[in-house]
Amino acid sequence: MFYTDNKLQFPVRVDSPDPLFARALQQAIGGVEGEIRVAMQYFFQACGARGDARFRDLLMNTAAEELGHIEMLATAVALNLEGAPLALQEEGARDKAVEAVMGGMNLKNLLSAGMSAMPVDSDGVPFNMSHIYASGNIAADMTANIAAESTGRILAVRLYNMTPDAGMKEMLSYLIARDTMHQNQWMAALEELGGAQGVFPIPNSFPQEQENQDFSYAYLGFQADGSAPAPGRWSEGPSVDGKGTFVTQPMGALGEQPDLGPAKPNSGAQVEQM
Amino acid sequence: MFYTDNKLQFPVRVDSPDPLFARALQQAIGGVEGEIRVAMQYFFQACGARGDARFRDLLMNTAAEELGHIEMLATAVALNLEGAPLALQEEGARDKAVEAVMGGMNLKNLLSAGMSAMPVDSDGVPFNMSHIYASGNIAADMTANIAAESTGRILAVRLYNMTPDAGMKEMLSYLIARDTMHQNQWMAALEELGGAQGVFPIPNSFPQEQENQDFSYAYLGFQADGSAPAPGRWSEGPSVDGKGTFVTQPMGALGEQPDLGPAKPNSGAQVEQM
Amino acid sequence: MFYTDNKLQFPVRVDSPDPLFARALQQAIGGVEGEIRVAMQYFFQACGARGDARFRDLLMNTAAEELGHIEMLATAVALNLEGAPLALQEEGARDKAVEAVMGGMNLKNLLSAGMSAMPVDSDGVPFNMSHIYASGNIAADMTANIAAESTGRILAVRLYNMTPDAGMKEMLSYLIARDTMHQNQWMAALEELGGAQGVFPIPNSFPQEQENQDFSYAYLGFQADGSAPAPGRWSEGPSVDGKGTFVTQPMGALGEQPDLGPAKPNSGAQVEQM
Amino acid sequence: MFYTDNKLQFPVRVDSPDPLFARALQQAIGGVEGEIRVAMQYFFQACGARGDARFRDLLMNTAAEELGHIEMLATAVALNLEGAPLALQEEGARDKAVEAVMGGMNLKNLLSAGMSAMPVDSDGVPFNMSHIYASGNIAADMTANIAAESTGRILAVRLYNMTPDAGMKEMLSYLIARDTMHQNQWMAALEELGGAQGVFPIPNSFPQEQENQDFSYAYLGFQADGSAPAPGRWSEGPSVDGKGTFVTQPMGALGEQPDLGPAKPNSGAQVEQM
Amino acid sequence: MFYTDNKLQFPVRVDSPDPLFARALQQAIGGVEGEIRVAMQYFFQACGARGDARFRDLLMNTAAEELGHIEMLATAVALNLEGAPLALQEEGARDKAVEAVMGGMNLKNLLSAGMSAMPVDSDGVPFNMSHIYASGNIAADMTANIAAESTGRILAVRLYNMTPDAGMKEMLSYLIARDTMHQNQWMAALEELGGAQGVFPIPNSFPQEQENQDFSYAYLGFQADGSAPAPGRWSEGPSVDGKGTFVTQPMGALGEQPDLGPAKPNSGAQVEQM
Amino acid sequence: MFYTDNKLQFPVRVDSPDPLFARALQQAIGGVEGEIRVAMQYFFQACGARGDARFRDLLMNTAAEELGHIEMLATAVALNLEGAPLALQEEGARDKAVEAVMGGMNLKNLLSAGMSAMPVDSDGVPFNMSHIYASGNIAADMTANIAAESTGRILAVRLYNMTPDAGMKEMLSYLIARDTMHQNQWMAALEELGGAQGVFPIPNSFPQEQENQDFSYAYLGFQADGSAPAPGRWSEGPSVDGKGTFVTQPMGALGEQPDLGPAKPNSGAQVEQM
Repeated sequence: MFYTDNKLQFPVRVDSPDPLFARALQQAIGGVEGEIRVAMQYFFQACGARGDARFRDLLMNTAAEELGHIEMLATAVALNLEGAPLALQEEGARDKAVEAVMGGMNLKNLLSAGMSAMPVDSDGVPFNMSHIYASGNIAADMTANIAAESTGRILAVRLYNMTPDAGMKEMLSYLIARDTMHQNQWMAALEELGGAQGVFPIPNSFPQEQENQDFSYAYLGFQADGSAPAPGRWSEGPSVDGKGTFVTQPMGALGEQPDLGPAKPNSGAQVEQM
Repeated sequence: MFYTDNKLQFPVRVDSPDPLFARALQQAIGGVEGEIRVAMQYFFQACGARGDARFRDLLMNTAAEELGHIEMLATAVALNLEGAPLALQEEGARDKAVEAVMGGMNLKNLLSAGMSAMPVDSDGVPFNMSHIYASGNIAADMTANIAAESTGRILAVRLYNMTPDAGMKEMLSYLIARDTMHQNQWMAALEELGGAQGVFPIPNSFPQEQENQDFSYAYLGFQADGSAPAPGRWSEGPSVDGKGTFVTQPMGALGEQPDLGPAKPNSGAQVEQM
Repeated sequence: MFYTDNKLQFPVRVDSPDPLFARALQQAIGGVEGEIRVAMQYFFQACGARGDARFRDLLMNTAAEELGHIEMLATAVALNLEGAPLALQEEGARDKAVEAVMGGMNLKNLLSAGMSAMPVDSDGVPFNMSHIYASGNIAADMTANIAAESTGRILAVRLYNMTPDAGMKEMLSYLIARDTMHQNQWMAALEELGGAQGVFPIPNSFPQEQENQDFSYAYLGFQADGSAPAPGRWSEGPSVDGKGTFVTQPMGALGEQPDLGPAKPNSGAQVEQM
Repeated sequence: MFYTDNKLQFPVRVDSPDPLFARALQQAIGGVEGEIRVAMQYFFQACGARGDARFRDLLMNTAAEELGHIEMLATAVALNLEGAPLALQEEGARDKAVEAVMGGMNLKNLLSAGMSAMPVDSDGVPFNMSHIYASGNIAADMTANIAAESTGRILAVRLYNMTPDAGMKEMLSYLIARDTMHQNQWMAALEELGGAQGVFPIPNSFPQEQENQDFSYAYLGFQADGSAPAPGRWSEGPSVDGKGTFVTQPMGALGEQPDLGPAKPNSGAQVEQM
Repeated sequence: MFYTDNKLQFPVRVDSPDPLFARALQQAIGGVEGEIRVAMQYFFQACGARGDARFRDLLMNTAAEELGHIEMLATAVALNLEGAPLALQEEGARDKAVEAVMGGMNLKNLLSAGMSAMPVDSDGVPFNMSHIYASGNIAADMTANIAAESTGRILAVRLYNMTPDAGMKEMLSYLIARDTMHQNQWMAALEELGGAQGVFPIPNSFPQEQENQDFSYAYLGFQADGSAPAPGRWSEGPSVDGKGTFVTQPMGALGEQPDLGPAKPNSGAQVEQM
Repeated sequence: MFYTDNKLQFPVRVDSPDPLFARALQQAIGGVEGEIRVAMQYFFQACGARGDARFRDLLMNTAAEELGHIEMLATAVALNLEGAPLALQEEGARDKAVEAVMGGMNLKNLLSAGMSAMPVDSDGVPFNMSHIYASGNIAADMTANIAAESTGRILAVRLYNMTPDAGMKEMLSYLIARDTMHQNQWMAALEELGGAQGVFPIPNSFPQEQENQDFSYAYLGFQADGSAPAPGRWSEGPSVDGKGTFVTQPMGALGEQPDLGPAKPNSGAQVEQM
């Protein structure tokens, strides 16, 4: 259950509004690296959490934080749209400078939202909830969260580097710090679950003797000339999960050309296929 | 550039076709945990790889492997659809058993594809390429890949547990082993990049003194009553990236209630908003 | 900014778990009539609210409520999946009853989420954030909210009528009551804004003398034989907004067949089009 | 069944073509507030109409009108693209002005459609038919239609305010007038159905004694500090549906922290969750 | 501009309603092979038609026909849902037969549409307007239309073969005949445009001397072992467009391994990539 | 099964990077006319091919080619982004020229991908796999492929005409030639299958006596005034499939106004509908 106080988690200030930066900020709201993603991902992971109740708590607590981040960014988008043109011709002759500004805007921020934020990315593509990964496996969820916070922090850094606005840099500096924490937080959760050797391969509940162990730690080469692909930590030495040893080998087809047989009558195929 | 030999990477055998299992297998093709996702993700990460060329090689080599997995699964779907009914009434009176089988099928496998596989998930939802994460940051890409292979292996395990078919279990046993390898492979790549303390926080190219360091390693509480959220590895002790120390503190609003001011004339708002 | 207490807003009890009802409940989470829709819609409307600050408060307060509804429903989905089969063959011979149950499930609840809820509808289609209507016009937003709560209550009623489970009926009885309130609440907000005659036509800030007033209150007929369409309150008498009088008239083409002229050279058309 | 005369419902004239305005007009075709939405919504509502046959007639008649509006707007888009550049370099050196114009265009209008309209919004996002609300409840459909025409008229007004083109203003003046009529028309339909007190709560076929009447007319507060949210018409006095009295009360959790129990063996969870 | 007479283009009769067949019919409405696709595709092609005005007429005339087909199918869906269960337990104990029927239904037909049709496919996935191909090249549009009517007729045939219902077979027999006509109609249009040798390669306005003519009629082999792919009409003899001669040759990489160079500072990459 | 050599199929050179052209090239990767479409379409058609094995070979061989085209284009996008600005203010005062360039970019190429290609179109809309047409009917698949290569070549021609860059023109000249070949290749495959008279109507396995032959070769007129639509090859003479003769006739409603009867109790309708 959620409560609000109608205030912002952290101050949002825009010194010099920029409609193009408003468009860029939309990525942090509705992009696949954005805050809706993490808020909803932690929320649904919490709702499906089984086992140690601390993980439900950890996830729901952080979901509440991320909801506040969406609110901050939505406010920042609206403030950056202050002063943006509403008309191609503000006065007199057609104004090419106005067209240039409008051309770079996300027009839906004006046309659909009246100079407010929307749950879309920087190209106006709406966020799709299929990006909420909640697997029912707590360790897999943590890996998804580390990945989410990694791309999230990269995005925030790119936005920070893009804008010359001191107010925006201050807000982003907070969000970047939170992404630092959240990357660490989910890695810490993996440590609680046993660290790499306890956790992997995910799921750790499947008996590895049931997998085809000839291929569990083999770096297979798919080079057309049969040569070995580039070596690295992944091609020899102990596996990271501590349960095997990396080997390298070229791979060729172990199966045959598949034959599905003729098409069934009445199946809508051509007669030549039957 | 890619080449083919028209053969299957690993044998695909279905002893007892089952249209419902065909539907389940579709998740491994076109689900967000499926093989299209990883094939295309590694492909696009390779195409955008900058820096050490071994990573491009590693990614493109594995992309080639995953393309072969899609082919195997598509073959398995078609073979599981062998014998599935094409009509609600195969003969004589309306056949309730036939209806039950068809009711559990993904009807598009029949109606759109003529008893073949499609790039859709187990509910017939087409795969959407927004699930291809390729960030331009090699470490973030590796975290996304670990997450992808984690959910991928969970899915393969669930499919393995679902089917009683020996042929399908053999195929899945191979795919599960490959997911084991790939989880390890991407973790090994992170080790090449410096391990947790060298890699994190991602991106490691952003000077941490520019983030708001009061919040970089603080586990903030968003409990309505101000109480502390559940403690864990994430709430005290050194941070996993080795660059800070976890602390816990309740969080309250640092910002005020936002005020966007009145709506602009001609912006399509109500007069009461101006 | 949001806070949580990790508890449920209202008790959720399932007396007799039913995986098919779990699938139906998904519509109330991730369907276009579902709770994600209203939670996020009110949230974004609040973030973009300009003018009387009470509306921001009203919207954000109700957004907090709806977030709790998602949590309740997600819990209900997981509880209804208790006891659902994980395998086509639980023991011995292939079990047709098990297949029937699995055939009616949303397989992603198992395959993707490990028997938990997802932000998808009853057919497994993920929620798309384009359904968040936040127009920047407070009155239009209220009409969207009345519509949302109308379809929302219909859905809850259908679910109530579908299930024989007393626990689920109790939960839905609460949600239906809340939809009753919310329908009234948003209508009340329209009254605050001036009622039908003050609010409509939306936006009320556009001078009606600039619209083509020959057509502002005319019920036009598009019947192929030029006959009048069926009459009603909409075809004569004063208009509901109090600013005109309904008339009825058949409509014919006022424009000509459009002619876009020849295609431009180098535009990728056939030479016959140039 | 539909017929056509290949002419335009209302004249479409563009005095001064503007590719950026072509992009803006796309929102009125394929945006969620656009004409495809209303045309298809009224069409599907008509197809599913049960009860008083006049509503089917009303809906299908208006669907025919809206189809003509799409045609008008598609023509307007093509005419606004007249003269738009096809090449980054029309002649000689790279032309920055040309790049600015092309940068503001929806490139798909050129690349995919050869300077014609598409069923996409102003950012090139294709219209998705999930936005067609047809609930099987005639009153809910009317509320959805009022909402649709409200956002539709706001969009048309914003486009009218955006363009300095007299031809476009004339076309939009017609469309705005039609939106005025349609807002009134659907409100009139609600009056036919009994007005607010006869229609609400929707659906009016559900016995209100089966809803949890403690919460039917209560404005619940979700403020973190337990304070009352901002009062208004919605917080006291008779409810708008005439069936209750508004009260205000703070809300706290009535349910407990949910416990889904341990994960089932073979469900793909980690062993720590079982 | 469009007109209607509120009648059905062809009679729609369902002798024995079947909710599962209602679900199958949805594919013919909202599937990618369905009637919304062709109606809207011909409509948008007409709106963007340049050159010989007969093509606009041909396209818009057929668009009108297809709109009537959607209406027929939507009626057929609703009639097939007659008698479908609204509750998991119609009376007394939980009814497994009812669950089986509901499990095979598209639940949204009940939950969202109250036993009516929706613009979705047989798995409940909404139609997406990106499937409307209107290229601005009249010949390419004709090829897209032949393809559309080919998959459309296959779907109608599969539905015809699926149902034992005489009324439905009669309706589908009409739709199949229309698909026969439309396949022929669009091929006839290609003949008007010059037949294969006049039309292809599309667009015929691009001077072929500007394409890399070493590769214009070469069937390239991408077999891993350098062997020739299977021969056919496509590997030798005159090309179908009459402008070249097919040859076969194995293909190897003509380019090098791409090198994007190091990542730019401030681009959000890892320091190791710079 | 697939192999790679990590090299490019054809050289990719950009003489003068242009971020706006990078955006345009994205259409050739992730647009509905793009290379992901054809690569995956041929791949899935191959996986579902039944009958003459040469078609599986033909399709999979060409799929391998197209995968290499995606790689070429992705490289071209990254090279065109060389030198694109990362910040609104590279130095000193806010730079309007920089804003103009960034305004015309696809911001996700920077924000999500760090100056690399993505599987999205020129407006940033991700590719959706529903565009993969693989019908299980080999002839229908060939028509879809002709259509795909027609729109593909149009797009490549438009890109060729758009860019002044010699390197890009050389790459596109290769791709245009390949599209020429592929159009011919799929037409040749139709000839192998019997040519127009052997192949059509698709599917040729459905006995035409079961279709309603009154309508199989009739060009029906849907003109509101009952006039004949524009004549052409499609309105008289032998049908293209050689199995009938075209006739023209005006069409009127053969069915009645549909009546779905009253809504069922408990179906969520209004009482007025029952």
